[in-house]
Amino acid sequence: MAGKEIEAHPKEKIEELGRGIVKDIRSGNNPKFVTYARKRSNILFDQKNGYLKLGKSKEERDFLNVAQSKRFMQTIAVAAKCHKFVKENLHTTIRGLYYQLKYSLGEDVDENIFSEQSESNPLIEDIEVSLDLTRENLNLNANRKGVLAGNMKVMDRFGDEKLEIDCSKQGRSGWAIPSDVDNDIDFVDVKAKYAIVVEKDALWQRLNEDGFWKKENAILITPQGQAARGTRRLIRKLADKGLPIYVFTDSDAWGWYIYWTIKTGSINLAYMGSEVATPEARFIGVTMSDLDKYEFLNKLTMNASEVDLKRAQEMISYEWIKKSKPWVVELERMISSKKKLEQDALQGPRLTFVDDYIKDKVKNKDFLP
Amino acid sequence: MAGKEIEAHPKEKIEELGRGIVKDIRSGNNPKFVTYARKRSNILFDQKNGYLKLGKSKEERDFLNVAQSKRFMQTIAVAAKCHKFVKENLHTTIRGLYYQLKYSLGEDVDENIFSEQSESNPLIEDIEVSLDLTRENLNLNANRKGVLAGNMKVMDRFGDEKLEIDCSKQGRSGWAIPSDVDNDIDFVDVKAKYAIVVEKDALWQRLNEDGFWKKENAILITPQGQAARGTRRLIRKLADKGLPIYVFTDSDAWGWYIYWTIKTGSINLAYMGSEVATPEARFIGVTMSDLDKYEFLNKLTMNASEVDLKRAQEMISYEWIKKSKPWVVELERMISSKKKLEQDALQGPRLTFVDDYIKDKVKNKDFLP
Repeated sequence: MAGKEIEAHPKEKIEELGRGIVKDIRSGNNPKFVTYARKRSNILFDQKNGYLKLGKSKEERDFLNVAQSKRFMQTIAVAAKCHKFVKENLHTTIRGLYYQLKYSLGEDVDENIFSEQSESNPLIEDIEVSLDLTRENLNLNANRKGVLAGNMKVMDRFGDEKLEIDCSKQGRSGWAIPSDVDNDIDFVDVKAKYAIVVEKDALWQRLNEDGFWKKENAILITPQGQAARGTRRLIRKLADKGLPIYVFTDSDAWGWYIYWTIKTGSINLAYMGSEVATPEARFIGVTMSDLDKYEFLNKLTMNASEVDLKRAQEMISYEWIKKSKPWVVELERMISSKKKLEQDALQGPRLTFVDDYIKDKVKNKDFLP
Repeated sequence: MAGKEIEAHPKEKIEELGRGIVKDIRSGNNPKFVTYARKRSNILFDQKNGYLKLGKSKEERDFLNVAQSKRFMQTIAVAAKCHKFVKENLHTTIRGLYYQLKYSLGEDVDENIFSEQSESNPLIEDIEVSLDLTRENLNLNANRKGVLAGNMKVMDRFGDEKLEIDCSKQGRSGWAIPSDVDNDIDFVDVKAKYAIVVEKDALWQRLNEDGFWKKENAILITPQGQAARGTRRLIRKLADKGLPIYVFTDSDAWGWYIYWTIKTGSINLAYMGSEVATPEARFIGVTMSDLDKYEFLNKLTMNASEVDLKRAQEMISYEWIKKSKPWVVELERMISSKKKLEQDALQGPRLTFVDDYIKDKVKNKDFLP
């Protein structure tokens, strides 16, 4: 799992794709581009290993097919640009790539290769899947979010420098998790008993101020909402190092889905499969059952909106969730009571209550699967 | 300007407020809470100094006035909680404060002090204005966003530790700008010629990778969109150290307003006046006139939406913008051409073009005021 990015060889793989096409043309064959279909019907839940992945349904793009030749040409143009970025050893975003593609035909050509970024985005994913590479291997940065503190060092080979960053010496700021945590970055000296992922930065700051991660010898992470690709990969890598992963979110469908995304991966990133999934993750809270354990929380609930309840219904219908009894119980309780709860509410009795809440849950292994 | 937070004494100021009320009660007077009105009609543009501030219109809240006594009580409850946070030396958010207020009457009292956070938020601002304190002085963290790299060190007095963070050694991550850059934090050893504020993190990452800030000896900041309070204060503090501040955003009403917010402060934070304004800031681009200077950009424009155009119209009507001729020209060109431009488009010819774009503008002092 962790080995893939090291042996990615994106430059060679793109060149191989190019050579294949040239060979086809020279020998009078119809050049083809083959990838796995990313449509919903080809997204499967791997029951045994506990994550979302693509099935075996393939998609072909032929140059000599009027309906496919434009997309074929576009796909090759995207691959060529990525090849250039990798060769130059420079990074950009999928938006930067789009602008280069739009620019590249020059001003004397009327036709645009692309008129909207929504045309180039799926082709990047096609290439990722087809060549078994990630966007990060193609030097395309994804959005980044997420902050970390804890007894861990990062070795960042950045440009000409080799920088050691001590995540226990970042003060109130924490270490900002980059968009790519695979290439040119190593996690060394990870000395922690577990990692805890806290949905909201506000709570992360609270716990960081209390020195929670020092006292517990934990790695304290916030994805700041739904976890970006880099943060999901980081969590996967910490799990690979043997750290238990605990997740702490709001008690509503959105918070709970942050957990599920970390655990099983998401529908959108199903094509990345096990690389962005951490099936070993466990859920700490907030749960609807916390209302029974912590009397005061009953005063601090909020009304769930129609949208909240619809999303909860949707979650129950997902194959990978509906088989988990305790989660069905939680979701049904939310739907019938029409209530939700924020993690911030745990500050009600005193600001440091949230520290004890997590410690108790970890100590008693009071998790949802 | 920079001295305020050092001499804030929030604990003493809240205690003084409390003592005044007790004294009024004991001597049979009607206890009062006085603050400056934050309504639109009391927000002025200080022409001479170039920032938005509150006027002299006051607002009084009497305990012995049926229409005001609930809000009076609520205001005092908020002040009491903040006093507690300051005494405990613990931080939370305005949401954490709300939950403590909701919790505090206990389970045997039916009445809530607050039923919605929208009731407690304005009272915090009332107290800030009345006592000439900031939210940060009251140990209330604001949202944080924003990242920085450059030849600068930060001394973070965090808990029991004194941590020196070298912003030139943070690699691809950069230093995450905290929500409070005044209390317990110092900027030492700022060795840079200027600071450049880049709207989008994607462009920040691009420039960081190129070592732009090293080559130019600049401080490279991204607010990641509209600047949070902490980032605005940080920019103000760098300007206080004599650094020129340059801002680089998309060429659309939203990007341009990010600049104006940094420069003059915003309507919402007018009560903080000069503390969150940097009238010395200059605008680098992207401008509509760049279309004349950089031919290729004409191919990379986007259509401005109705909402974009409406926002541009609104901006022209602001007193502090309509007096600035070059800005009126820019806004009118946008409105008549119905076009906009992203900073990402500067990657069209080559990924490193954006570096040269900024360098040229700085070298030629090609700024908008």
